[in-house]
Amino acid sequence: MKINQQDYHTIWLSEDNKNVIIIDQRSLPHEFKTESLSNVADVCDAIQEMHVRGAPLIGVTAAYGMYFAALQSSPDTFERDMKNYAQQLKETRPTAVNLAWAVDQQLAQVAEGQVNPAAFLDLAQKLKAESIDRCHQIGKHGLQLIQDIYEAKSEVVNILTHCNAGWLACIDYGTATAPMYLAHDAGIPIHVWVDETRPRNQGARITAFELQEHGIAHTVITDNTGGHLMQHAQVDLVIVGTDRTTATGDVCNKIGTYLKALAAHDNDVPFYVAAPTSSIDLNVKDGIKEIPIEVRADHEVRYIQGSHEGQIKEVLLTPAASPAANYAFDVTPARLVTALITERGICEANEAAISALFSV
Amino acid sequence: MKINQQDYHTIWLSEDNKNVIIIDQRSLPHEFKTESLSNVADVCDAIQEMHVRGAPLIGVTAAYGMYFAALQSSPDTFERDMKNYAQQLKETRPTAVNLAWAVDQQLAQVAEGQVNPAAFLDLAQKLKAESIDRCHQIGKHGLQLIQDIYEAKSEVVNILTHCNAGWLACIDYGTATAPMYLAHDAGIPIHVWVDETRPRNQGARITAFELQEHGIAHTVITDNTGGHLMQHAQVDLVIVGTDRTTATGDVCNKIGTYLKALAAHDNDVPFYVAAPTSSIDLNVKDGIKEIPIEVRADHEVRYIQGSHEGQIKEVLLTPAASPAANYAFDVTPARLVTALITERGICEANEAAISALFSV
Repeated sequence: MKINQQDYHTIWLSEDNKNVIIIDQRSLPHEFKTESLSNVADVCDAIQEMHVRGAPLIGVTAAYGMYFAALQSSPDTFERDMKNYAQQLKETRPTAVNLAWAVDQQLAQVAEGQVNPAAFLDLAQKLKAESIDRCHQIGKHGLQLIQDIYEAKSEVVNILTHCNAGWLACIDYGTATAPMYLAHDAGIPIHVWVDETRPRNQGARITAFELQEHGIAHTVITDNTGGHLMQHAQVDLVIVGTDRTTATGDVCNKIGTYLKALAAHDNDVPFYVAAPTSSIDLNVKDGIKEIPIEVRADHEVRYIQGSHEGQIKEVLLTPAASPAANYAFDVTPARLVTALITERGICEANEAAISALFSV
Repeated sequence: MKINQQDYHTIWLSEDNKNVIIIDQRSLPHEFKTESLSNVADVCDAIQEMHVRGAPLIGVTAAYGMYFAALQSSPDTFERDMKNYAQQLKETRPTAVNLAWAVDQQLAQVAEGQVNPAAFLDLAQKLKAESIDRCHQIGKHGLQLIQDIYEAKSEVVNILTHCNAGWLACIDYGTATAPMYLAHDAGIPIHVWVDETRPRNQGARITAFELQEHGIAHTVITDNTGGHLMQHAQVDLVIVGTDRTTATGDVCNKIGTYLKALAAHDNDVPFYVAAPTSSIDLNVKDGIKEIPIEVRADHEVRYIQGSHEGQIKEVLLTPAASPAANYAFDVTPARLVTALITERGICEANEAAISALFSV
C-alpha cells in the first residue's frame, strides 16, 4: 500500500539479496523510518523490540532471519548452527505462533539436508508472497460486501474498525483493511471510523497512518464513540480482525471488540470479521470459557506515549497510587458476528459453515 | 469526602466570611491545590477556566459569586450592578443550566429589594447545603442496592462506573459515587472498576483520585474493558451519572455509557443511573431523536494531557493530518436501564414511574 505516494510492502529484499529492509514501526505515526537488517542478530532485535509487529509480518521477518542464519552457519556444523539460530529467533516473542511456524518451515528444509542459502531465501520469499495473496483474497471477498452496500446506498460507505488489522501488521493489504483498500482502489467512495483502541492506540497510531497515507477518508474516534454513531446510522458496516477464531465462530480480538459487536447488533449494523483460516482453532468451541485472555502490564493503561515538540514522550494519566488492569483481548460470541471474511470466501460464524470451509 | 485523610467539600467559606476556598481541579490527580476566591472576577475566572467543574459545583460557586457581587455593588446602583455581575457570571459557561439557575435564584432576591450581602451569602450557603443533602439522599437509596448484593454474595461487591459523577463535580458525596462512599463508610467491602473515559479521562483522573484519597479499593481500566469483565462475572452492578434524563427514562450521559449499558444487559448485570430529579427533563420523550449531542473540539481526541517528570504535558496521539471527531455524550435507551437512583428514591426508567415520582 502507499506511503507518501509510493507503494510499499512492510518488508523487502535489497537488490543485492544481502539485506532485508523493514519499516521501523516504533516511531509511527510521527516519523517514517526504514531500517536495513543484515544478520540474525538484527532480525532478533527488530522482532523483540517491536520494530516489526503483527503475526504475519513477524513470521515472514523470522523466515528471512533463517536465510541470514544459513549465510552465517558453518558448512561443518550447519544443522547445529541452524537450530541454534532458530532457537534465538523463536525466543524473541515466545507466544507468537506465526513466528515459530515460519521458523519450523525453514528447519524442515534443514532436516531434509538443504544447505544452500538460496533455498532458505526462496522459502522466505514464498511465505511473503503467500501472505500477500491471502490478504488479497480476503480483500476481494470483502470488497463484494462493500460494493453491495454502495450499490444499495449510492453514497459514501461508512466502515468502522477497531485496532489495527492493517497492512502494516502483514506484508500488504492487511486483513480487516484489505476490503477497504480494494474498495478505495476500485473507486467506491468509503470513509472509515477508526477506533483509537486504548491502551496501545493501534487504531489512532497505525490504522489512521495507513489510511491517511493511502488517501482513504477516515476519522479517528475514541473507543466510546461507535455506539452513538451506529444509533445515528453513521456506520454501514463494521470490519475487524481476529487473533483467534473458534470452531463455532466466536472471535477473540483486541479488547473492546465485543462492545462494538453489541452496538452493531443493537442497531442492525452488519459486523464482519476478517479471519484468515489460519486464525481458526478447530479445537476450541466456547471462546469465552476456553480462551485465556492475556493480562499485560498496567503501565500501558497508566501511561501513554505521544509526540511533544517533535519528540516521543510518555505521560502519566492516573493518580500515581491508583492500580490499573490491562486485559488485552475479549471474546465476541458468534451470535453477534454477521460473517467471517476468509481467504476462501465469506463464511457464516457457526460450526457447520466453518467445518464446511475446511472440508472443501 | 477525604483527601489526604482530611474531610473536604469542593468549596467552603473562609472563617472571616471574606473568601471562598475551592480545590483547583486542573492539576488533579497529579497535584492537590486549593485556591482562595475573593471577588466576582476571581469566581468568573475559576468557572471559565475550569478550576471548578461539574454542574452542581459550578452552580454553587456562581451563587457565592453573587455574594461577592453584593459586596462589590454600589448601594446607589445596586440592582443594575447586580444584573451586570449576574451577566458576567452567566457568560462564563453559557450552556451550564445549573449556573444560570443559581444566579437567577440570587437575582430573585434583588427583584424583591434585598440589598444586604448577608442575605446573598445565606442563599449561597443554603444552595450548597441542599446540594449536599440531595447527593446524600441518592447515596442512601443506592446504598440499599449495594447492601442487598453484599448480603446475597457475602464477598466484595464490584461496581463499574464511567466518567466522573463524583463528589468533586458536586459539593460532597457525588451522585453515582454517593452509594459507593456510603457503602464503604458503612463497612461494606466494595471495589470499583473506573473507566478512564476518553477523551478527557475524567475517570482515570478524577474518579480514581477521589476513590484513592477516600481509601476505596479501585482499578482503572480502559473504556474497552467493561464488557470483558461483565462476561466473566467481575461486575455486580454498574452505577453511572446522567446529564439529562428524559420523561421516558432515556439517559444522556458521557459518551460510551451506552456501550456499557449494552454489555450490562447482555450479561444480566444491573445498570443503575444516579439521577437527581433536576436532571429529568419532562419535555423530552425520545432521547436518541430529541437530545442534541455536543460535538467538542477534535483537539481533545488528537492530544492528551498527563504528567511527565513532574510537569503537565500534552502529547499528540494521531497522525498530524488525520481528522478526529469528538462526540461528548450518547443516549442510553430506557430499556437498558435497570432503575434511576433519585434523591426521592429508586425509580424505574419508564414514563409512568417517573411521572409518579413528580406527583408525590
